[in-house]
Amino acid sequence: MKIKRYSKKNDYSFCFGPELVSELLEAKKEKVMKILFMKEGLRDENVKKIMVLAKKEGIPFEINDRLIKKISSKGNTYVVGIFEKYICELDKKANNIVLVNPTNPGNLGTIMRTIVAFGMEDLVLIKPAVDIFQPSCVRASMGSIFYTNFKYFDSFEDYLNTFQKRNIYSFMLDGEKEIAEIKFKEPFSLVFGNESQGLGQEFKKYGETAFIPHSDFVESLNLSMSVGIALYVACK
Amino acid sequence: MKIKRYSKKNDYSFCFGPELVSELLEAKKEKVMKILFMKEGLRDENVKKIMVLAKKEGIPFEINDRLIKKISSKGNTYVVGIFEKYICELDKKANNIVLVNPTNPGNLGTIMRTIVAFGMEDLVLIKPAVDIFQPSCVRASMGSIFYTNFKYFDSFEDYLNTFQKRNIYSFMLDGEKEIAEIKFKEPFSLVFGNESQGLGQEFKKYGETAFIPHSDFVESLNLSMSVGIALYVACK
Repeated sequence: MKIKRYSKKNDYSFCFGPELVSELLEAKKEKVMKILFMKEGLRDENVKKIMVLAKKEGIPFEINDRLIKKISSKGNTYVVGIFEKYICELDKKANNIVLVNPTNPGNLGTIMRTIVAFGMEDLVLIKPAVDIFQPSCVRASMGSIFYTNFKYFDSFEDYLNTFQKRNIYSFMLDGEKEIAEIKFKEPFSLVFGNESQGLGQEFKKYGETAFIPHSDFVESLNLSMSVGIALYVACK
Repeated sequence: MKIKRYSKKNDYSFCFGPELVSELLEAKKEKVMKILFMKEGLRDENVKKIMVLAKKEGIPFEINDRLIKKISSKGNTYVVGIFEKYICELDKKANNIVLVNPTNPGNLGTIMRTIVAFGMEDLVLIKPAVDIFQPSCVRASMGSIFYTNFKYFDSFEDYLNTFQKRNIYSFMLDGEKEIAEIKFKEPFSLVFGNESQGLGQEFKKYGETAFIPHSDFVESLNLSMSVGIALYVACK
C-alpha cells in the first residue's frame, strides 16, 4: 500500500513525534497500521522505547526517512504513527460538548485536551465541521483525541433525535442567564457555535441559554476558552 | 525610511487586516507610523473606512502592493498598520497576570484577549520571554494587545522588588490548594510558568500556590486555558 500525504479522503491519518505516537499506542493500539522511524531518531531514548514496544506488540514498523519527509510538513520528525481512521460510539447517558460548525483544527484539538482534562469523553460535531483527523488537530489535542469519543451529525436536529432526554445549554453572547447562575442538570449538552458566527437565534428554543460575562473591549472569548470555562463551571 | 520584514530588533511592528488596523487606530493612534493599502483592497468597505479615517486624522498612508507582499507572510492582506513599538507603565495597585518565561506567541496573544475580556489590563512578562510585538502574537490577541499594559522584567525578584505589597498566587501542578478554595485578595498577582516546564519549586515561598483540578489523562491544561479559568474564578 502506497502511503500519501494527508488528505481528508484517505482512510488513515498520522501523528508526529514520540509523545503523540506513545499516546496512540497506549489508547488506540488496534488502529495502528505502521510506525515510521527516521534513522537519526534512533539515538533518542523515547524513540527507541517506541521501537521496542512495536517489536513486542508485533506492530509493523520501518525506518524510512524519505517517506517521513514526504508526509510531514516539518520534515525532521523522528517518529510517525500511521493509524486507521475510526468511528466512535457515544454513550447516550454521558454529558456532551456539542460544537456547531467548528472550523479551526487548532481550536478543536485544544477543546479535546480540555474535555479530557475535565473528565469528560463525548464530543458531538455538527456538520459542516473541520476534519478531526487532520494532523494539526491531532497535534493540538496533545493526544487527547485518542481518549475522546466523537461523532459527526448532519444537523443539530439529527443529534437531538438520536440523543433525547437531555438538558441543553446553548452558549450565546445574548444568552439569558449568566453561566454562574445556571444549575447544570445531567446528562447535559453544552452547545457552542463557531468562532466567527456563534449560534443562531433558533438555539433559544432548545433549552436554557447561557453567557460568560466579559468586557466590551473584546467581541467574544476565544471558542476553546469559552468551552474550557463552561466545562470548569459545569463539572464542578 | 526603509521598511523591512518584521524583526525583534526593529523599533516598529505590523498589524495585518482591517480588524486589527481598526483596533490600532482606536486604541494607539499616536503610535501609528503609516498605513499601507493594497490597490485591490480599496473595493472593500471596511478598508475604505480606514482610508477615510487616516485622511481625517492626518495619518500617513500609501497604496503599496509590493511592500505589503514583502512584509506580510500571507501576501493577500488588504491593509497593514505600521506602528512604533512602545513601553507601558503598570499601575502598582492593579491586579496582574505574571507569565514566567512564556515562549508561544499564539498563547500570549490569546492570554491578552482573555485578560481584556475579564476587565484586567496589566500583564507582567519575566524574561526570557517571547516578543510581544511579533505579528503572530498581535494577530492572536485580536487587537487586545492595544488595550493591555505589559512590562518585561529580568527576573521574578525584580518584579517583586518593584511591585511590593501584593498577594501572590502561583499556579503549579502540585499547588497546595484547589483554585475554588482560594479567597483571592486584591491587589493580586496570578503567576504562571511556561507551557513545557511550569513554575519551579521556589515559587512556593512567594505566597499561596494553587492548582486547577484535572484528570490523569492529560499532563496539564493548555497555558492560556489555565490563565482563562484562573481569571474567571479570581475576577468573579
